[in-house]
Amino acid sequence: MQYTTMPEIDKLLQKAQEVLMFLKKTTVTERARLMHHIADAIEALGEELLLTAQQETNLPVARLATEKARTVFQWRSYADAVATGNVLAVRIDTALPNRMPAPKPDLRKTYLPVGIVTVFCASNFPFAYSTGGGDTASAIAAGCPVVVNAHSAHVQTSVIMAGAIAAGIEKAGFPASVFSHVISEGFENGQYLVQHPLVKAVGFTGSYMGGKTLYDLAQKRAEPIPVFAEMGSVNPVFVLPKKLKADPKKLAEQYAASLTLGVGQFCTNPGIIIVPDIPEFDLFLDTLATTVTETSPAMMLHKGIAGSYHKNKQATITQPGVSVLAEAANTNELAGNATVAITGKDNFVHNKTVAHEVFGPFGLVVKYHSTEDAIAIAQSLEGQLTATVWAETEEAGDNRELINLISEKCGRIIFNGFPTGVEVCYAMQHGGPFPAATDSRFTSVGPDAIQRFARPVSFQNWPDSLLPAELKNENSLQIWRTVNNELTKEHIVL
Amino acid sequence: MQYTTMPEIDKLLQKAQEVLMFLKKTTVTERARLMHHIADAIEALGEELLLTAQQETNLPVARLATEKARTVFQWRSYADAVATGNVLAVRIDTALPNRMPAPKPDLRKTYLPVGIVTVFCASNFPFAYSTGGGDTASAIAAGCPVVVNAHSAHVQTSVIMAGAIAAGIEKAGFPASVFSHVISEGFENGQYLVQHPLVKAVGFTGSYMGGKTLYDLAQKRAEPIPVFAEMGSVNPVFVLPKKLKADPKKLAEQYAASLTLGVGQFCTNPGIIIVPDIPEFDLFLDTLATTVTETSPAMMLHKGIAGSYHKNKQATITQPGVSVLAEAANTNELAGNATVAITGKDNFVHNKTVAHEVFGPFGLVVKYHSTEDAIAIAQSLEGQLTATVWAETEEAGDNRELINLISEKCGRIIFNGFPTGVEVCYAMQHGGPFPAATDSRFTSVGPDAIQRFARPVSFQNWPDSLLPAELKNENSLQIWRTVNNELTKEHIVL
Repeated sequence: MQYTTMPEIDKLLQKAQEVLMFLKKTTVTERARLMHHIADAIEALGEELLLTAQQETNLPVARLATEKARTVFQWRSYADAVATGNVLAVRIDTALPNRMPAPKPDLRKTYLPVGIVTVFCASNFPFAYSTGGGDTASAIAAGCPVVVNAHSAHVQTSVIMAGAIAAGIEKAGFPASVFSHVISEGFENGQYLVQHPLVKAVGFTGSYMGGKTLYDLAQKRAEPIPVFAEMGSVNPVFVLPKKLKADPKKLAEQYAASLTLGVGQFCTNPGIIIVPDIPEFDLFLDTLATTVTETSPAMMLHKGIAGSYHKNKQATITQPGVSVLAEAANTNELAGNATVAITGKDNFVHNKTVAHEVFGPFGLVVKYHSTEDAIAIAQSLEGQLTATVWAETEEAGDNRELINLISEKCGRIIFNGFPTGVEVCYAMQHGGPFPAATDSRFTSVGPDAIQRFARPVSFQNWPDSLLPAELKNENSLQIWRTVNNELTKEHIVL
Repeated sequence: MQYTTMPEIDKLLQKAQEVLMFLKKTTVTERARLMHHIADAIEALGEELLLTAQQETNLPVARLATEKARTVFQWRSYADAVATGNVLAVRIDTALPNRMPAPKPDLRKTYLPVGIVTVFCASNFPFAYSTGGGDTASAIAAGCPVVVNAHSAHVQTSVIMAGAIAAGIEKAGFPASVFSHVISEGFENGQYLVQHPLVKAVGFTGSYMGGKTLYDLAQKRAEPIPVFAEMGSVNPVFVLPKKLKADPKKLAEQYAASLTLGVGQFCTNPGIIIVPDIPEFDLFLDTLATTVTETSPAMMLHKGIAGSYHKNKQATITQPGVSVLAEAANTNELAGNATVAITGKDNFVHNKTVAHEVFGPFGLVVKYHSTEDAIAIAQSLEGQLTATVWAETEEAGDNRELINLISEKCGRIIFNGFPTGVEVCYAMQHGGPFPAATDSRFTSVGPDAIQRFARPVSFQNWPDSLLPAELKNENSLQIWRTVNNELTKEHIVL
């Protein structure tokens, strides 16, 4: 393996900085064109990509093919979002020279790239949250050159993807340093990047430990920089009594399916289910135990992930008041065997270790007796990417206090469903209160993810000929603009 | 003076937390109504407010009256911005149950308040950036209860303003703890607030020292929270040769007027002017010297500000290569006497002390000889709230590299004008790259300031009857919404 050296990183960043000045001058239309070229190049990648990724991550080819299609869709939909002005909304206030007591100047606000963005790849999504994933696509959409730090668990996949991105950039006629690829042994390169004066923002998807370390490094810089770290969560599922009563068996089967999907290796995996102690509780529990026991163990992403799964699971199930309900058989320490345990409300609320994320197919059933119990459980939760409520519609209406409290803790709240499956669309919020993410005001999925890497700049009293295209009187890009408080696509006639 | 104790702060925050759950359930229309009531109450304040503020800050009554009107306008325009959906833009993607390979869920994204916001007041704007100022208005617009830490330099003004806000809240029928007022001796209360687990965001306007200290405290919390600190800057003015040649006398007079406006106590004060060494340079300099010498010194905001002005000015003018060009006479150490000094490009670029902000009526002329000089000066700058270019239109077109570089360093870029005067409108960007502000992606002035204190939350597959009003199929609030990628005010028909 040829690792990137720090002097090489310096050179990559210096070139990227030159390209930043070039990208600043491109219009949203030109950046959208670039992004479609990159999407084409990724789309054209064939079996080599899928098989390499399969070998490096143990993920099935069918799942990887879907993830690749999603990755391509991210590039295209983010490109459309900037090109239409739906994201990075332009604001224009025209002058009022006769206003009293002072004239109002002409002010026009657009967005500039924050600067070079460093992206850290996720082990569990080699395409969609990695080299050519959502962070890279949204940073380039904002006009930022990107330096990707490849994930050590899927370097070859990363190299292939980097090649496609480079080809797309070349085809579009953009300078190569829009995108750079760093291969690292250990953590030093990553830390060097986050502390480098030319790097102005960071995108990260992974563990709390990894994300928080980078966040702290970035805040300690002489010039602190924004770090968007998506660090996962336990994604609690609250079940209300009438819904449990309606079909305990089906709920248990569906929960087990969501919990064990992809060997539980999703940051939205529903690791905790809060279930009322009513007569149907036993049937729910029996079905869950049976279904989980019958799940075949499967290879996890890599040795480190598997090791952590078994260690963290052990730490939880050996806590006082926690008992194992069911555990699928396992003969391979690199595989994740589905496991569910059970505990009570008091134990969950008072012992923080019990509520910690176990990345993998591990579920914890928390039994509760009353609405007050459920509220206490919700209150004890840390920030989550998602939370889910299973309830009859009327029942949910009667439990608004609980549901309000749950929504306080998460970025996405699901009704009678499961959180695995993160749709790429405008209405997606993938993020949440700390520690699910480092900044709950942003999403890392959907076109609004672009907002993480753009900063507004106002132009005051500039001649029309010198303004960026999106701010000129003539709306040649045909984007949505807020002109004197009204959304419009009209030209401005002064 | 009755100072607030820490146990009292705890109680205020506990009550505010209860109100947060109440505010979460209010619609944007209801919050807008509350804000207009507060605006009414502030508007109704009369001479007592103005005279108290005048006594505490030495600011003239006429200026204070304008600032009060601006403050009222902030409440009203931010109220309208949330009520129309122009800020906190709702996104809706309806379900595609038959999509392959997997159905698409119904997703609807709105905004929740981040939680209790603590606001620190500015010494130089007792109304517009203080107790009832832009931070408070934008936090309440986002649905956040606010705890204001009064500025020690204008506590009585703050008390009067807090009374008006309380009256407005009562009139609107909202709970009192939407707004709380803390009076502090020293810094302990402020630090306690920023570190309190119930506080979820901070707004600050003031010095670099103050803002950075609070920022660092907030990042060291177990749960880091966003701090938007606007910390001022030197707001460089770049003059290009043809423009100087056109009218050196008028430019010097206008610059002096902007520099000394309000005893130079604006965060947008143009503390540095970069002027080409052409024959007209001498006339520019002579006029500037004469105008500045003739400026009457005036009382600064308070003793601390005046002391810092004289100390910091002294530190700059005693640097090697810096010489005083003109200094208005002064007999009162509490007054700020306008002063201009001059230095050369090399000295400016290599000695960071020379480029430091001197808060008050102090200007530094930096002489340059070539476009390369001007580029080097621009490159050496830290992040700025504003930067200004004086140029003929054609000349500016010929200097795009320089202007691009300047825009890279600031939040607002002005053409042939001066940065003092911060318009309250959608297109305003008041903020900028660090150290002008702690997060360049947000503004503290204009309706978009609300975005600092709101976080998106997605509702997945919720029954229409249980959705927040702004997300229901029927668009009863008549707000702009992005529905299936298109901006519309239409109802949704499924």
